[in-house]
Amino acid sequence: MTTPVDIEFLHRLADAADAITSTRFRQALEVDTKVKPGFSFDPVTDADRDAELAIREILTATYPDHSVLGEEFGLAGDSRFQWVIDPIDGTRPFLCGIPVWGTLIGLTEEGVATHGLMSQPFTGERFWGGPDGAWTRRGGARHPIRTRAVDDLAGAVLHTTSPEGWPDHLLDGFARLKTATRMTRYGGECYAMVMVAAGQIDLAIEPSLQPYDIVALIPIIEQAGGVVTRLDGERAEAGGPVLISANQGLHEQALRLFAA
Amino acid sequence: MTTPVDIEFLHRLADAADAITSTRFRQALEVDTKVKPGFSFDPVTDADRDAELAIREILTATYPDHSVLGEEFGLAGDSRFQWVIDPIDGTRPFLCGIPVWGTLIGLTEEGVATHGLMSQPFTGERFWGGPDGAWTRRGGARHPIRTRAVDDLAGAVLHTTSPEGWPDHLLDGFARLKTATRMTRYGGECYAMVMVAAGQIDLAIEPSLQPYDIVALIPIIEQAGGVVTRLDGERAEAGGPVLISANQGLHEQALRLFAA
Repeated sequence: MTTPVDIEFLHRLADAADAITSTRFRQALEVDTKVKPGFSFDPVTDADRDAELAIREILTATYPDHSVLGEEFGLAGDSRFQWVIDPIDGTRPFLCGIPVWGTLIGLTEEGVATHGLMSQPFTGERFWGGPDGAWTRRGGARHPIRTRAVDDLAGAVLHTTSPEGWPDHLLDGFARLKTATRMTRYGGECYAMVMVAAGQIDLAIEPSLQPYDIVALIPIIEQAGGVVTRLDGERAEAGGPVLISANQGLHEQALRLFAA
Repeated sequence: MTTPVDIEFLHRLADAADAITSTRFRQALEVDTKVKPGFSFDPVTDADRDAELAIREILTATYPDHSVLGEEFGLAGDSRFQWVIDPIDGTRPFLCGIPVWGTLIGLTEEGVATHGLMSQPFTGERFWGGPDGAWTRRGGARHPIRTRAVDDLAGAVLHTTSPEGWPDHLLDGFARLKTATRMTRYGGECYAMVMVAAGQIDLAIEPSLQPYDIVALIPIIEQAGGVVTRLDGERAEAGGPVLISANQGLHEQALRLFAA
């Protein structure tokens, strides 16, 4: 049995979040601080919490039996279907006025991501993936997206959000990967990850993701032809250190170099 | 005597550049490589060259006596009025599909920046500064922009484009600044610098800028209440290691810490 969820429902959830996040972007905000290992500052804003509540309200009304895991309010329910949401992935760029943050909405069935959507309301972009493929939309009609065919590390563009916060045991592998690739970009958050799906970046690596940072992106990247795994090669729905690649050949080369 | 140039003329130049850059963003591009110290890869695209030519054509027709300095085609002329242009500041994010690049158009009189404009055509934003103040526009009416009043380093958000490419003699100062500030963001290029003017980021530091990377931004930041100098405290029109701050008090603290 597969989930009867239609991708339009994910757009509806994103509409509710956009209504909150887009009006608060670049406004003065009260900033709390959560503790996160390796970072000294992690802002949580009212926009985060309110957007997650707006999504949860629709979810609970529509699929009362499904579980929900969100960044701000944790896990509710125990179903084979679990929604995994990050109302604002990239709170830091959100606070800096830079539109590379996004609302992430994913659905897993028995722990495997089947549907995912990223919304960036300031640029007006949506990126999504599901049984029907990987797509983007900005204003008008949707367009299919496809990863790049770059098949060697020397030709690949690498992204990671920050050079800070990497655990010691991953630093050598990351240094090897930076040296082997054509260039390294920083600061893109989930926006850079959908750019892998859209054929603009070839590799994205993050040392420590939570499920809500990655689940929504998995169907987008996989359906666009890309590969997402943990650095140990296992599926990434549970988070951890995660590598995203434009294609299988590149992914294998990068994992091998990282483990060397 | 001050220059008779109206800020609307800078918008007209940006319109010409936007027509070229916006249609080529996220398209496949032929990428050349220029040699730049400290970086192993510096893409130059047709979009860069064509946008600079489009700007130069209007400049030459309108102000044939003025000098022009551009990233792609160097210096022409020898006038007290010099236009300083970077058709695509942030070629790397341009190539990665991330809209933090911009077209920079500045004007100096006797070496001092008097007018400057940054255009980001994908988000549809303009930021500019001149004798009439600092402004932004997206779609409709213009709005004044103003830097933040944060007056201590511990409360300040710091930006730099990349952790790579820093010369050895600046690394200790950069490390001190990172430690002293609230958080450090990467990967924003000129977009992060106009976010200082717009009161979203408090400090921006770059180890090595060319005149065309900074001249257009100086009037935007200064007119918004911010401060731009080299790390030796001198004016930044000629480039070098540059610090941008939301206000004079923060600037002095950051320069002092850097020199410590």
